[in-house]
Amino acid sequence: MGGPEIERLIELLSRLPGLGPRSARRAALTLLRQPQTRLLPLADAMQRAGQSVRTCSRCGNLDSRDPCSICTDDHRDGSVICVVEGVGDLWALERAAVHRGLYHVLGGTLSALAGIGPEDLNLRPLLSRLEEGGVREVILALGATVDGATTAHWLADRLQPFGVTVSRVAQGVPMGGALDVLDDGTLAAALMARRAG
Amino acid sequence: MGGPEIERLIELLSRLPGLGPRSARRAALTLLRQPQTRLLPLADAMQRAGQSVRTCSRCGNLDSRDPCSICTDDHRDGSVICVVEGVGDLWALERAAVHRGLYHVLGGTLSALAGIGPEDLNLRPLLSRLEEGGVREVILALGATVDGATTAHWLADRLQPFGVTVSRVAQGVPMGGALDVLDDGTLAAALMARRAG
Ligand SMILES: [Zn+2]
Ligand SMILES: [Zn+2]
Repeated sequence: MGGPEIERLIELLSRLPGLGPRSARRAALTLLRQPQTRLLPLADAMQRAGQSVRTCSRCGNLDSRDPCSICTDDHRDGSVICVVEGVGDLWALERAAVHRGLYHVLGGTLSALAGIGPEDLNLRPLLSRLEEGGVREVILALGATVDGATTAHWLADRLQPFGVTVSRVAQGVPMGGALDVLDDGTLAAALMARRAG
Repeated sequence: MGGPEIERLIELLSRLPGLGPRSARRAALTLLRQPQTRLLPLADAMQRAGQSVRTCSRCGNLDSRDPCSICTDDHRDGSVICVVEGVGDLWALERAAVHRGLYHVLGGTLSALAGIGPEDLNLRPLLSRLEEGGVREVILALGATVDGATTAHWLADRLQPFGVTVSRVAQGVPMGGALDVLDDGTLAAALMARRAG
């Protein structure tokens, strides 16, 4: 439909999470109707984001600079590091504005089923930051899944030698639920009610 | 979150129909995690589509060439023209593969409420094609809305002097429903059961 360029656009759009073939077509049509004001600006935004995005070497966040804007923000409390599974969780906590410290993105959880072991997770940079000193608390903000709990246990063990307080978000994360689907209030409650790890 | 480039990407994605802020963030994250293999190829596809898309001067379809690939397809029956409100309807009929003639995209329907009059619709190129001759039937495939029915009436009147058969898709289009949400079978039935206008 509409030649190879339009077909490829629809095809790639339909691979986005949350967009089925039907909504991909609708989105493509909306964009194609206004190529100058909608389609090309989005293409340009993608190009710029794609060229500038990097993974923060300190915390694992995605940002246009490295270290990321959170790691380099002087107003944030460098003595508290919140460990999350993914960048989506970091974004969720930032939107809720409930954590004024720094982050560490683990890049997943341990999973026997998926064959994800300790060596597959982004742990080393966190240990380096703890070795540098100045950190007094690590908050484990992992999902309330079996894998999340396993990972939290393992992490608490790994962090014990550093003598920092290890706490976990607890109340408010529904069983089996992922962190980044929660509303801001629930996230705030979960963070406030954290308990020592 | 993640600097101005990433924020702008999320912002533009969230304006797409079918993507709320939440799914826009998920989509952005998926793309940002694989900039080389996902984000930049999509940016490129958008660029190419945006630069190549044009409105067919014969039928109003969107395509990378003008006249469009349907208008220039020798295997199609040039004696039957199917009039649709928008390109999305044309795509729906093409997917259902129930119409082997040509199309005309009207670009909307008459609407007293929205202040859309005959002069706002893409009618002139259709009349020119009828003047050229060789057309024996015009199928009005408009939605079963009040505005769609009004438009079909008005069009049937306007086309009468040309001596072509004017028919309307009828059975199968649910009352108040738009054409492009129908399944292929329903579309096929509606087209088969068309009645003289
Ligand atoms: Zn960082
Ligand atoms: Zn055409």
